[in-house]
Amino acid sequence: MSLTNASPEAAARAAKAASFALASLPAADRNAALETVHRALAAARDDILAANARDLELARKAAADGALSEALVSRLDLGKTGKWEDMLQGILDVRDLEDPVGKIQMRTKLDDDLILERVSCPIGVLLIIFEARPEVIANIASLAIKSGNAAILKGGRESTESFVAISTVISSALERTAIPNAAIQLVTTRDSVAQLLAQDRHIDLVIPRGSNELVRYIKESTKIPVLGHADGICTIYLTATADPRGAVDAVVDAKTSYPAACNSVETLLVQDTALLTVFPDVAAALAANGVALRCDPASKAIISNIPGASIRDATAADFDTEFLSLTLAVKTVSTLDEAIAHINTHGSHHTDAILTSDAADAERFMNQVDSAGAYWNASTRVADGMRYGFGTEVGISTNKIHARGPVGLEGLTIYKYKVRGNYQATAGYGNGDGKTPWKHEKMSF
Amino acid sequence: MSLTNASPEAAARAAKAASFALASLPAADRNAALETVHRALAAARDDILAANARDLELARKAAADGALSEALVSRLDLGKTGKWEDMLQGILDVRDLEDPVGKIQMRTKLDDDLILERVSCPIGVLLIIFEARPEVIANIASLAIKSGNAAILKGGRESTESFVAISTVISSALERTAIPNAAIQLVTTRDSVAQLLAQDRHIDLVIPRGSNELVRYIKESTKIPVLGHADGICTIYLTATADPRGAVDAVVDAKTSYPAACNSVETLLVQDTALLTVFPDVAAALAANGVALRCDPASKAIISNIPGASIRDATAADFDTEFLSLTLAVKTVSTLDEAIAHINTHGSHHTDAILTSDAADAERFMNQVDSAGAYWNASTRVADGMRYGFGTEVGISTNKIHARGPVGLEGLTIYKYKVRGNYQATAGYGNGDGKTPWKHEKMSF
Repeated sequence: MSLTNASPEAAARAAKAASFALASLPAADRNAALETVHRALAAARDDILAANARDLELARKAAADGALSEALVSRLDLGKTGKWEDMLQGILDVRDLEDPVGKIQMRTKLDDDLILERVSCPIGVLLIIFEARPEVIANIASLAIKSGNAAILKGGRESTESFVAISTVISSALERTAIPNAAIQLVTTRDSVAQLLAQDRHIDLVIPRGSNELVRYIKESTKIPVLGHADGICTIYLTATADPRGAVDAVVDAKTSYPAACNSVETLLVQDTALLTVFPDVAAALAANGVALRCDPASKAIISNIPGASIRDATAADFDTEFLSLTLAVKTVSTLDEAIAHINTHGSHHTDAILTSDAADAERFMNQVDSAGAYWNASTRVADGMRYGFGTEVGISTNKIHARGPVGLEGLTIYKYKVRGNYQATAGYGNGDGKTPWKHEKMSF
Repeated sequence: MSLTNASPEAAARAAKAASFALASLPAADRNAALETVHRALAAARDDILAANARDLELARKAAADGALSEALVSRLDLGKTGKWEDMLQGILDVRDLEDPVGKIQMRTKLDDDLILERVSCPIGVLLIIFEARPEVIANIASLAIKSGNAAILKGGRESTESFVAISTVISSALERTAIPNAAIQLVTTRDSVAQLLAQDRHIDLVIPRGSNELVRYIKESTKIPVLGHADGICTIYLTATADPRGAVDAVVDAKTSYPAACNSVETLLVQDTALLTVFPDVAAALAANGVALRCDPASKAIISNIPGASIRDATAADFDTEFLSLTLAVKTVSTLDEAIAHINTHGSHHTDAILTSDAADAERFMNQVDSAGAYWNASTRVADGMRYGFGTEVGISTNKIHARGPVGLEGLTIYKYKVRGNYQATAGYGNGDGKTPWKHEKMSF
């Protein structure tokens, strides 16, 4: 690992060269490197927290001047209860995950002594761009090492001191391991993001970890594939056959358990025949939990008498908005098709749910809603790598290729084909006269 | 299916809307549609071949004027022995492939009555851009229908008459099937490629079928993921421990069995200690098969006395060239590392092979060569979807994400997560006091 002031192009080229050697390191070496990093960070706790305190001090001043949000300051703070311990434990958790590299996915006998194998392997070079959270450095460096990928890490300005402190420790720790030196590059120069995003010859995948604005900027600014999502406009479609109590539980959970999360619900579609049955209790429960409702006329008319509720008319823009707060847009629809069309047009293809007792409708909803997650009678907040049981989460992707939804370590791998033969000439194979047919026998693995 | 003169944006939007309904069509409907298309094309044979003859006449004139290559004229000809029959049989072959949609890839019990499933599904909307081969229309329309993807097809100018004739038949055939009308759009307007490539909101994947120049132009011109490869600079590394007869067989096959194919070898790396042992017979066999050799000084010195051979000095550019003809660049290297570094720097990450008796070297080569195919003692020409046993080939990808190497139907799918629950609130789950732990039990499927 090296803290580099090299040009982005040189850093990317060096990372690529290192990635080839890294690709054949056995799991034991990669896991040992994670333990070395863990020990080194634990030993350097006081220095790192002191550096973090310096970042925090500057950030608090900027926040007082209104130049920085309080939320960002809060994300910056490594000293918050449990954060440091979680960061360290996360490294060991990643070590303990199943090795994603070298998994045989297919084995076919093309002919005697001519065996085709599909094997998982690292993607190559990752570019990780993150904003305030300094613990992401340790997390993402662990994921890269575990999956055998080289990585270039570029941190945000606000966390520079923390970034340098953590990086220096990881860097000197890795020098005592089998990980090639240039495999993890830390770019500290200020204005290099645009140049890094131009290195599509050397960088294979960009993973942004930060605000919607950061992700959107990156998606607009590079030809390299980006793993992530800009928006999380999740929708729940409440039908007349939904269980009344269950609907309250699921919708309140989806809106209020962590409103700033990307998997929180932002739009509630209500079947017209549910307006007078299931909907009023759901609306009352939301209002009781402090949720402000932005309603279309039909839904507003039904619930205007809820005491103490914040209810106002929805604008068209509300149905394209990720509120990230205790606000919910409500719209009435007549049919399942209308609900699906609304979600596919206004949603962000992240996670959407239908609440219904009708199994056929539920299956059609799950098949036709074009989202990473399509749920039946479940809270959209289930959409999370830890909750799915992946052990870690690289991010949540709304891409249509490679990896979709919560992405675990597997999303940092691709596969290659290996063929082990005995010098056979392909010209002799085929279906014609005197040709040898391919055997194409599936083999166990 | 519709032959459209709509704007590229309107065509793409319509295809996207149709894709949602298409995504839930059962396999029986998709297969029945393929049979309907097959019957309709068979019945329209004479009309289509007459249209193709008109394209051919214009193309032959253009070729006589030097405006078009003879190779292109040859690719255009649907009347060549077996081509028409192969095209029709191809549709039935695609029908008989395993359904790639709706495959359950993972099932996890998150809790009682809260089941997570990962299910394969269509990607959405494909944009297929092809040049001269008119049979690609039937082939790629079949693949799209089979995999439940909407598709926009844009043909080359030279095949316009054939394109319109085939398209009209497929179009009216599909009207009698369950496939939504706008699911397959045929764009015949001239200059719409650039506008189609700008429809990244509606189009999910571009598949170019044509020359390196076409693929390179498309990769440079769109933010939509492109499935394919521009170059096929495949390399064989001949070591001193290779079987002498086997090396002749494999190298001659890789160079001469179909020199214009992307999986043909273009560079031969020779271990220095093999120059006087295995290499001379390989060089003589290549020369005897009409292969012109472009050699570095060390290899040239060894074989300058082969009678009748075409041998000249290699230029630096020769090692970055896809000859697509009976020409081979030859370079001497000292070590496995040098061979791997050459391939990763000068190759096109398509398919590369090592010929050796040393298993450890072979494994390291296969792990460290950053290519879709890394072979041991096999001809690079094994790299092919039919030869791999995929039943069809969408293309060969040198991408590092999603699909790599020969791509079968699976490459036209992604997955989504379905959760079937009982209205559980996520806030009640976790590891703290009074929380319900996630079960994360793997279930059979």
